[in-house]
Amino acid sequence: MIEPPAGFLFSATTAGIKPSGKPDLALALAPNGASAAAMFTRNQVVAAPVIVGRKNLQISKGKVRAVIVNAGNANCATGVPGLKAAILTCQGLATAIKCKPAQVFPSSTGIIGVPLPFEKITAALPKLLADANADSLMAFATAIMTTDTKSKVAAEQIDWRGRQVRLTGVAKGAGMIHPNMATMLVYLFTDVEAGPRELQSCLKTAVDESFNNISIDGDTSTNDTALLLASGASGVTIKSVKKQFEDALKNVCRSLAAQIVADGEGVKHVVRLKIEQARNTDEARRIARSIANSPLVKTSWAGADPNWGRLLAAIGYSGVTINPAKIDIYLGAQQICRGGMAFSFDKDVAHEYMSQPEYEIRFVLGAGRARLEFLSCDLTAEYVRINADYST
Amino acid sequence: MIEPPAGFLFSATTAGIKPSGKPDLALALAPNGASAAAMFTRNQVVAAPVIVGRKNLQISKGKVRAVIVNAGNANCATGVPGLKAAILTCQGLATAIKCKPAQVFPSSTGIIGVPLPFEKITAALPKLLADANADSLMAFATAIMTTDTKSKVAAEQIDWRGRQVRLTGVAKGAGMIHPNMATMLVYLFTDVEAGPRELQSCLKTAVDESFNNISIDGDTSTNDTALLLASGASGVTIKSVKKQFEDALKNVCRSLAAQIVADGEGVKHVVRLKIEQARNTDEARRIARSIANSPLVKTSWAGADPNWGRLLAAIGYSGVTINPAKIDIYLGAQQICRGGMAFSFDKDVAHEYMSQPEYEIRFVLGAGRARLEFLSCDLTAEYVRINADYST
Repeated sequence: MIEPPAGFLFSATTAGIKPSGKPDLALALAPNGASAAAMFTRNQVVAAPVIVGRKNLQISKGKVRAVIVNAGNANCATGVPGLKAAILTCQGLATAIKCKPAQVFPSSTGIIGVPLPFEKITAALPKLLADANADSLMAFATAIMTTDTKSKVAAEQIDWRGRQVRLTGVAKGAGMIHPNMATMLVYLFTDVEAGPRELQSCLKTAVDESFNNISIDGDTSTNDTALLLASGASGVTIKSVKKQFEDALKNVCRSLAAQIVADGEGVKHVVRLKIEQARNTDEARRIARSIANSPLVKTSWAGADPNWGRLLAAIGYSGVTINPAKIDIYLGAQQICRGGMAFSFDKDVAHEYMSQPEYEIRFVLGAGRARLEFLSCDLTAEYVRINADYST
Repeated sequence: MIEPPAGFLFSATTAGIKPSGKPDLALALAPNGASAAAMFTRNQVVAAPVIVGRKNLQISKGKVRAVIVNAGNANCATGVPGLKAAILTCQGLATAIKCKPAQVFPSSTGIIGVPLPFEKITAALPKLLADANADSLMAFATAIMTTDTKSKVAAEQIDWRGRQVRLTGVAKGAGMIHPNMATMLVYLFTDVEAGPRELQSCLKTAVDESFNNISIDGDTSTNDTALLLASGASGVTIKSVKKQFEDALKNVCRSLAAQIVADGEGVKHVVRLKIEQARNTDEARRIARSIANSPLVKTSWAGADPNWGRLLAAIGYSGVTINPAKIDIYLGAQQICRGGMAFSFDKDVAHEYMSQPEYEIRFVLGAGRARLEFLSCDLTAEYVRINADYST
């Protein structure tokens, strides 16, 4: 187990927002401050904490002293009262730790359209602060869960001239989302020394190659947030370990992304799509998304059915210009489509291969040199059951 | 019952393409020829009959003597042999009825990637031709079915100075598509007197306002075709009855579109989305599609769950610029969201309303004056079961 990065304290408690009575409030402190970079949902319906968090990072010029996350209520579609609740939460915490409100970063996840009981959050702050310590990152990771069945953590360590730079990320799942529940939340903590701009560029690249290459049901949440905080406590500057840090960040993000897909609601099969010989990465991603979001494809995966015709049809309506006659498709080692046409293959072997919890499908497009890996999953009757429950 | 339009003969038989042994070959003849207009799938993976049909209409300058449709095999992803099969089918029929091959319009629907046994089709032609008569349109409508549980027919009649112009349409279902089965096929027969260009403009408008405003699972087939044939046998020119004909065509297309949605695989609820106060029709359609294709929305409909947060989120990621604070949502007579926020409503009444087999949701966007009606349906565990069956 890699030690958590230096310069952070973590804490979690039960504020009473989740009806289940499970821990639902998580805190991360950077007592000496941290540089921050963040990426947010592209949905135009945006939750109050996303609006306030983005604004706070602008005002504080990317400096953060504390992160406060509640689960059980998304504080979305809650109007002006929702914005006030997010602002008052930040103010309450700022007063307690003696920093500016803009140095507090808020997040929420859970039910949409219900007023956030922020008094419960402020009431829980004293205990949350008293409990904060360097070793409670797992408690943080657990408290931010909603319909996740497992907490999601990944860590990397870089050694540089006898010193260690540490990076640990935690996440909660997105997609295959519970009734009214939403949101992928990702928090990445490191003790490298870096400014907000350097962090932002690293974060964008890592998110593009991880969280932007997964799809569970194609729905985009109103609260999606990825936050990267650097305490600088390792005493190692990002310049010294640039390449290693970028790789470590990508690895952590990819691991968290894979954990999110594997823990999607009702998921029985995780499918790794390898898109090869695309004209460029953007087109490869559009093709992958078209495949990954097709209900006909996803249900065929649920049945371990090597239905290459549906795969081909989904590529055909992706919006990317393709030549079907150049497309080859492979299921593991076995080719199942050649030049856009049927290809004799062993269907029993294919069915068995697709019965595994995780496998890959490779698409060779014959259009260019770009390649992309994209993680997706099947659409099961269990998913429908979970999401069709009358529960508003 | 409205009489079929004059100038056409219909026929159907069992050629042995469907494994079930049900009728699978349908013929429509226009002994004195008919003007034609057609619209095809936008999928880039296109079945051989679509390629051949499009080409034939170009060569024949929109004149058609016969339509031949087989069900049970889509003749898609079948390469050069597939093209040959479609061409030989047209040649066989052309020889038998003494017309040019380009005056024959072919269609196929069914399994993808399996060679089309066109010898079975040519072998069945003599019987098919011998049986052709003016009253067998229902047999035609039944033979083109694949996973449809009902045949789909709609008809309109226009009276003009003591004469009758008749229009009858038949269709088979799209979307919620059976393993490897695909395709919406629509054939519209009329005895109005019209040229191919006049017909094409009427057809485009009618398709835009009907088949382009439905969505079942968002998958676009490789064989989708809508064909409009005008025999001229009524002796009434389209100019004399322009407006009435356009309206009749729209009505027939809308009725067929509604029948297709209602007969979608596993569908328990047909949902009519009324988009109001959009900036323009295109934006209204994009918003409707985003709602109609969201698995989270569609599963909430399966559970009769008035989950307005998911509706709002789907509008938010539609790609259309919106102001969430202006959006009102109504479930029948009851408002469930005001200004993008929660609105107190009777959840039991809402649940009961959504338990009906057909109902409507109205979205008032506050952005402009455009409006659109869009038909969609729920995503049920039954749909997953049908489409997850291992059956390649």
